[in-house]
Amino acid sequence: MSLHGKNFIGYSLSANGTDETIAVDPTTGQNLETAFIEATSEEINSACNLAAKAFDSFRNTSSKERAAFLRKIAENVVNLGDELIQRAVAETGLPEGRITGERGRTCGQLTMFADLIEEGSWVNARIDTAIPDRQPLPKPDIRYMERAIGPVAVFGASNFPLAFSTAGGDTASAIAAGCPVVLKAHPAHPGTAELVAHAAVSAAKECGMPEGTISMIHGKSHLTGQALVKHPAIKAVGFTGSIPGGRAIFDTAASRPEPIPVYAEMGSSNPVFLLPETIKKNEEALVAGLTGSICLGAGQFCTNPGMLVVQASPEVNSFIQKLAESIKNAPAGTMVHSSIKDGYSKELSAKLAVDGVTLLGKSDATTENDATAAQPAVFSASAETFLNNDELNKEVFGPCTFIVICNNKEQILEVVEHLEGHLTSSIHGEDEELIQFADVISAVEKKVGRLIINQYPTGVEVCSSMLHGGPYPASTDSRTTSVGTAAINRYARPVSYQNFPQALLPDEIKDGNPLEIWRLMNGKMGQE
Amino acid sequence: MSLHGKNFIGYSLSANGTDETIAVDPTTGQNLETAFIEATSEEINSACNLAAKAFDSFRNTSSKERAAFLRKIAENVVNLGDELIQRAVAETGLPEGRITGERGRTCGQLTMFADLIEEGSWVNARIDTAIPDRQPLPKPDIRYMERAIGPVAVFGASNFPLAFSTAGGDTASAIAAGCPVVLKAHPAHPGTAELVAHAAVSAAKECGMPEGTISMIHGKSHLTGQALVKHPAIKAVGFTGSIPGGRAIFDTAASRPEPIPVYAEMGSSNPVFLLPETIKKNEEALVAGLTGSICLGAGQFCTNPGMLVVQASPEVNSFIQKLAESIKNAPAGTMVHSSIKDGYSKELSAKLAVDGVTLLGKSDATTENDATAAQPAVFSASAETFLNNDELNKEVFGPCTFIVICNNKEQILEVVEHLEGHLTSSIHGEDEELIQFADVISAVEKKVGRLIINQYPTGVEVCSSMLHGGPYPASTDSRTTSVGTAAINRYARPVSYQNFPQALLPDEIKDGNPLEIWRLMNGKMGQE
Repeated sequence: MSLHGKNFIGYSLSANGTDETIAVDPTTGQNLETAFIEATSEEINSACNLAAKAFDSFRNTSSKERAAFLRKIAENVVNLGDELIQRAVAETGLPEGRITGERGRTCGQLTMFADLIEEGSWVNARIDTAIPDRQPLPKPDIRYMERAIGPVAVFGASNFPLAFSTAGGDTASAIAAGCPVVLKAHPAHPGTAELVAHAAVSAAKECGMPEGTISMIHGKSHLTGQALVKHPAIKAVGFTGSIPGGRAIFDTAASRPEPIPVYAEMGSSNPVFLLPETIKKNEEALVAGLTGSICLGAGQFCTNPGMLVVQASPEVNSFIQKLAESIKNAPAGTMVHSSIKDGYSKELSAKLAVDGVTLLGKSDATTENDATAAQPAVFSASAETFLNNDELNKEVFGPCTFIVICNNKEQILEVVEHLEGHLTSSIHGEDEELIQFADVISAVEKKVGRLIINQYPTGVEVCSSMLHGGPYPASTDSRTTSVGTAAINRYARPVSYQNFPQALLPDEIKDGNPLEIWRLMNGKMGQE
Repeated sequence: MSLHGKNFIGYSLSANGTDETIAVDPTTGQNLETAFIEATSEEINSACNLAAKAFDSFRNTSSKERAAFLRKIAENVVNLGDELIQRAVAETGLPEGRITGERGRTCGQLTMFADLIEEGSWVNARIDTAIPDRQPLPKPDIRYMERAIGPVAVFGASNFPLAFSTAGGDTASAIAAGCPVVLKAHPAHPGTAELVAHAAVSAAKECGMPEGTISMIHGKSHLTGQALVKHPAIKAVGFTGSIPGGRAIFDTAASRPEPIPVYAEMGSSNPVFLLPETIKKNEEALVAGLTGSICLGAGQFCTNPGMLVVQASPEVNSFIQKLAESIKNAPAGTMVHSSIKDGYSKELSAKLAVDGVTLLGKSDATTENDATAAQPAVFSASAETFLNNDELNKEVFGPCTFIVICNNKEQILEVVEHLEGHLTSSIHGEDEELIQFADVISAVEKKVGRLIINQYPTGVEVCSSMLHGGPYPASTDSRTTSVGTAAINRYARPVSYQNFPQALLPDEIKDGNPLEIWRLMNGKMGQE
């Protein structure tokens, strides 16, 4: 299949614009084939209007129909075969094994949401039946369930060309909920986006979904994204990327005549607390584990451990020295795009320029292409320096970590209170010292979406108990997750139905529970 | 108990400011006793900092402890006895029966949330246990539950001095979730607010809750509210009031360095669709029912039916004439404050000034005090006029309704698509015509939080299936409700716990399910 570079506006391909994006292989710096034509404002408008029209019937499709559609997308993505894998590798510089794994995860997510909606209890059905003779007033029959929120705009992420892009988690959960999706492809991997969009749009056609259920536009200008977020048909936004990018989208959405929710997953340093005893006992394993987690995927995971918090001691000095050695000897990674590598260099330099910050070690390894090569690094400062320099509270996106050295537990608590929001925080400690540091763990909980004991933050399990999000700036909405089954609730809102005849009620809240879902019936949970 | 007019800053009374509010009896126009001293920025700051400090222990209190605290507030409110009833009647002009009923509802809400958290399943617990030998990677143990979001700012509402004010729904749900609350009293009923704050703060002391769990400040300047919403300790806001007021708070919260959720319940005209057959058959009952619902509480209910949509016919003409007669003969109501009456007059005049709008009837009844007397009114226009004048899509807050006359069903659908968000919409129809108009009902669903068949929107049942909210501008967050048990989720966010030792887990997600709550365990719902 040769790439066409056009926008998917409902069931049409369209390329009325003149601006274009050319993808670059970050491993070689060479341009890749096909120019991708950026969407015009008319094309964006058409995609959104088609989505609004599609919403009227798509939101009333049955869960079975939407589940079949999700499974068909997964099937079509797999059927893209090696062409998808090779294009994604070429556009991102990520190894083939990683891309193949990410394809598996992406299809797993589509299937997981299909299973979730087929089971059906996610709608949080609640029924309170009438008591006509209640005094002083009759009690009406009221029934409640989650319904699709409306057309959703989803922005592809640079660091996950499949799992957080065209048919990624946001798209899967929005479709599962009954929301049409207008995608914006990430300009770093437009060819991957086109291939997957073709798979998804074909699936929509094959499953008889209304035109406009899925559209995808190209555009590297921030104006493309702004136009999409401003469109009155769009009722929610999913985004994974940088803080400035996410905040700009959030601000645009908040200043609309009708503000809409924005689920932007943005920056996180994922602070790791290393308690004294465990450093003594497990020095070698910690050095190896942290080096692996820091360097994984060229440090481009949102759960990359970018900050370590330790309490000063001779053992800690030895640990720090060994970690610095390990990082010095780590290989360089290829970042997805030269602009991301430029960001890494700039952010790292800004930290090193702060008075009191020491560079402990930096790899001098190289790759084929300097423009995208990221050398792992480790730097440190005292807690005082951290507390007095807001610059040090900002994430560096890349394979490096910042060690904050505290004098005692009180200072660790001060560091915790000073943290912004993060996706995760890990605490490494022996059983007894974890209990001793329970107050630290409790304080950290206020700042994060996921707390981890004695494991590394990279590797986000896709399951029903995952919260991938957290207080700002980890995300713009700490009440929701971008990974796992709970993500479906981002794209839904509850509706109450009072005194409805059975024929007009959705099956989920009909008498007799035809779908056999879990429901709260007059205050009692059950499947009756 | 004589009123002191001071702010409740944690467990201290404070009145360092110089600006003051005097309450007015809207029935007589006379000033009421006691000057209420507006909070200074230092006092606001202290209240918020105390709330942040209280949060550290309050969020970790057990559900049993918080339930006891909620019940104690209810007990103390009841123990205020007739003094509370008389002051609330004097400050609002609402009849004693209504205030007594509202006190019952307020205490019922406090008790309902106590029951809800004692039962405990609201936390949405999800557990996925480890599979250490999973290939290619081990599966970690992850557990998920809702946790308190942080200190909450709650704004008292003009129209519900008890149920949506100091110890109202937002306060009850925030406390239930484990969030300290900083209240801003509504300047129309500061004495009622003081009495209830005294009851609530005393309950906090009696139950051993940390200082700062509840504070209450006075202030009629919008700067007071802005300062509260901007304070970094505040993590969510509850508000019930006008669109400009709610939007200003939303904008302030969205432009903070760390944006926070705002749950503002604002305007709604609660469109009522009257289908042809039912108008023929039930003319008299509809005229009586609608007149009652329109005039209830001087039209100050947020669910007041401010818009009726009908299809032109001879029967409809007769119905309209009879409704106009009925409204003409309705008594005037006393609004809570002269500024609210001024708003009613202004908003009504703006509608009547639109070309094509006809005043069909207006009561000329009077009350003791012209400054707060609201005369019921009814006016109409064609669907064309409605569709072409955005002014007519705006709520009039008061005892009036606007009849939109359509030529046919297609025009009804156009009217529906043109609607903004509303709290409710009612459809009155005979069984068969409800099925014929199923497409209209489905289209209306996109615009509202609660759909009602053959009942009136006023009278909001407090239960687990109630969604009191809706798309903007009915509320700023259509994903949540301000009434009913689901309101607790406004003040919570999920946290994931990975690989945690049992001793450090909250009871809700420990092995063996010590609290016997409903949990999703490896994808299966149960109480194991």
